[in-house]
Amino acid sequence: MLWTSHFVAPLMKILAIDTATEACSVSLLNDGYCQEIFEVIPRQHTERVLPMVDEILKKADVTLSQLSAVAFNSGPGSFTGVRVGTSVAQGLAFSCDLPVIPVSSLAALAQLAFREENKEQILSAIDARMAEVYWGCYQLESGIMRLIGKEHVSPVAEIKQTGQWHCQGSGWDTFKTELEQSNLVNVTSSTLNCFPHAQDIAILAADMFQQGKMVSAEDAIPSYIRDEVTWKKIKDQ
Amino acid sequence: MLWTSHFVAPLMKILAIDTATEACSVSLLNDGYCQEIFEVIPRQHTERVLPMVDEILKKADVTLSQLSAVAFNSGPGSFTGVRVGTSVAQGLAFSCDLPVIPVSSLAALAQLAFREENKEQILSAIDARMAEVYWGCYQLESGIMRLIGKEHVSPVAEIKQTGQWHCQGSGWDTFKTELEQSNLVNVTSSTLNCFPHAQDIAILAADMFQQGKMVSAEDAIPSYIRDEVTWKKIKDQ
Repeated sequence: MLWTSHFVAPLMKILAIDTATEACSVSLLNDGYCQEIFEVIPRQHTERVLPMVDEILKKADVTLSQLSAVAFNSGPGSFTGVRVGTSVAQGLAFSCDLPVIPVSSLAALAQLAFREENKEQILSAIDARMAEVYWGCYQLESGIMRLIGKEHVSPVAEIKQTGQWHCQGSGWDTFKTELEQSNLVNVTSSTLNCFPHAQDIAILAADMFQQGKMVSAEDAIPSYIRDEVTWKKIKDQ
Repeated sequence: MLWTSHFVAPLMKILAIDTATEACSVSLLNDGYCQEIFEVIPRQHTERVLPMVDEILKKADVTLSQLSAVAFNSGPGSFTGVRVGTSVAQGLAFSCDLPVIPVSSLAALAQLAFREENKEQILSAIDARMAEVYWGCYQLESGIMRLIGKEHVSPVAEIKQTGQWHCQGSGWDTFKTELEQSNLVNVTSSTLNCFPHAQDIAILAADMFQQGKMVSAEDAIPSYIRDEVTWKKIKDQ
């Protein structure tokens, strides 16, 4: 699968990794061109992600040490999946002393809706269990989806946004009824495959890289929209 | 914490990582000397493991590319924890083209019982949920715990071993009553801290390295004593 990006990022090489959902994908943004390998392989991420990294780098004849940064899906998403992606990114970046760019899966979903459907105002939502969704509002600006305000976790009924929004993400499948009953009257929702894609993470990461929004490998951690205490309760159920 | 190994492995440098339980530890076997950083930090492995790797390498003035191999605890253990360790080991090894050595946590527990209590015949067991334990029999040979037969998953009542065994591991805490009622009459059990330690993984890995038991980073995967279908059932409960 070869895809040429509209986003031009000359002389920048970013490897992006996404293992946060049932999909597993890697992408290489290579001086303006973006390649991706994408597979839906629930519970096989640990086995497949590194061979996929190897394949995409070899095909482009790019070595790890030539990269500008390593990006990864920092969640929200599956607890284990987010941590697998974080750990692989940490390990790869550490050894070559590369910066790491954590990218939100809500942002990746918004970028996907622009890339595939040309949508410009996105309300991304991912099922957060406990009758809640992780959600965030994104607005297109120069080809990049930018977060308005911050990301949240709440019941759908508590999402109050005015304007015309395109709803994107698995959260809307789970809470279809709640969405119809909500205050969000001006919405369209997507029939798109709702998995985030590494190529959107690469594009968002390139923008963050240019803004200096990187961390060291040791500081690359998953995003915690929901606090740890609540997570523990969910895991112990 | 500095510890000098009895096991002499000249001119071999092995980095070992363990995130498979509530403990998190890294160890560097550096030409016969073994150092370890060990912490009990439930749910903080993703945040702590790489800073620990960085610290142990810097203190020893060893770089990743100087290593002979990267070893990790391939389980059994916590589902997420095992995958975090696997992913970090994969990432670190991949970039420097280092071989990877997956080490069983049952073996690591057996090696710990020898190192701390001088035990030579160990029956390691870890709680496998669904009223079962992961277990394996280990016998000391030239300072190294060697697996007799293979590792299993079964109810305690189905473990039938003759001889004098020292029981080691969290499985024996969970199934104390079953252990007393079992056919395993000739047992002693340990009051030891039951977490595996990266230094035992390093020692076992050094032996495996000498025997050529390594894999490439892409082929480093968790151990699957229990099949995937059963795992899925447990996770879905």
